[in-house]
Amino acid sequence: MPPKPASDSSRFETLIHDVPDFPKPGVVFKDITPLLADAAAFAEAIGQLAERVRVHRPTGIVATEARGFLLGAPLALAMRLPLIPVRKPGKLPRRTINASYQLEYGTDRVEMHADAIVAGGRYAIVDDVIATGGTAAATAEMVEVLGGHVACFAFLIELEFLNGRQRLGGRALEALLRY
Amino acid sequence: MPPKPASDSSRFETLIHDVPDFPKPGVVFKDITPLLADAAAFAEAIGQLAERVRVHRPTGIVATEARGFLLGAPLALAMRLPLIPVRKPGKLPRRTINASYQLEYGTDRVEMHADAIVAGGRYAIVDDVIATGGTAAATAEMVEVLGGHVACFAFLIELEFLNGRQRLGGRALEALLRY
Repeated sequence: MPPKPASDSSRFETLIHDVPDFPKPGVVFKDITPLLADAAAFAEAIGQLAERVRVHRPTGIVATEARGFLLGAPLALAMRLPLIPVRKPGKLPRRTINASYQLEYGTDRVEMHADAIVAGGRYAIVDDVIATGGTAAATAEMVEVLGGHVACFAFLIELEFLNGRQRLGGRALEALLRY
Repeated sequence: MPPKPASDSSRFETLIHDVPDFPKPGVVFKDITPLLADAAAFAEAIGQLAERVRVHRPTGIVATEARGFLLGAPLALAMRLPLIPVRKPGKLPRRTINASYQLEYGTDRVEMHADAIVAGGRYAIVDDVIATGGTAAATAEMVEVLGGHVACFAFLIELEFLNGRQRLGGRALEALLRY
């Protein structure tokens, strides 16, 4: 058999570096900074993500602090869609709602402005990586509490072995790279 | 005298909301989330920022966590330039350098990957707001320690009454809005 032609994602794959034992022993961190530093590859990644997200007809992009901003903001610009930031507690200045999610030990919380979502709107929830899916699920909960629909989740990277997808209740999920 | 014609920035100005007493009593916070939520105005802001930054011929965009990512990432995409994130301590996975800056009480620190800057490269340092200029000055210090030049600083908003500009040693500074 001839070798399989390089997939679209093979270019990106070489620009995502494994960093072992970060942030703690036994964890392999996916470092996206080499991709950010390659302007052509980054533009291509945002373009491909936009193409996949467009299929789900979102009316807004919801991006999660902090690395989610690196993908979500250019994606919103590329798609000419409103950008809604989800932040850690205490960072947003006006009235917020929040949602909690389980960590290995304890819980964490994310916030969104209470007027950020248009009732009936369709939102793409964007982050760099889906690991256990806690942040994504909490973000979806806030969008829905405020009367919005989750059009899809969109990630640069899905860490399939962590089964984050299972926490997202069968909603559409796009990822450029899977491990 | 006839009223002055609306400047280019008047559209943005109505989308930056003052939030009094945030994050603490006596401070008026500039909330940029209404601008982010207006896709056309946000695209126009990024376009105007790109135009001004281009004059300084940068070879890369350095953006500061977290709100700086919301401006810096789309700006890097629009200008097709490498994007270098500056983060809070402990967030970047590889070898970093850091710089400290003075707060009202105590100090804070930002980090950058030690291999993030190309020696001789020209960098635009981007954030949403310049207040006292501490983060911007610390970021410039890291860029220069690593052998890069600061082409310019670029902000959506300059809070002139806080004199942040004075900490930036006469380097070029672009801001779409001034208060």
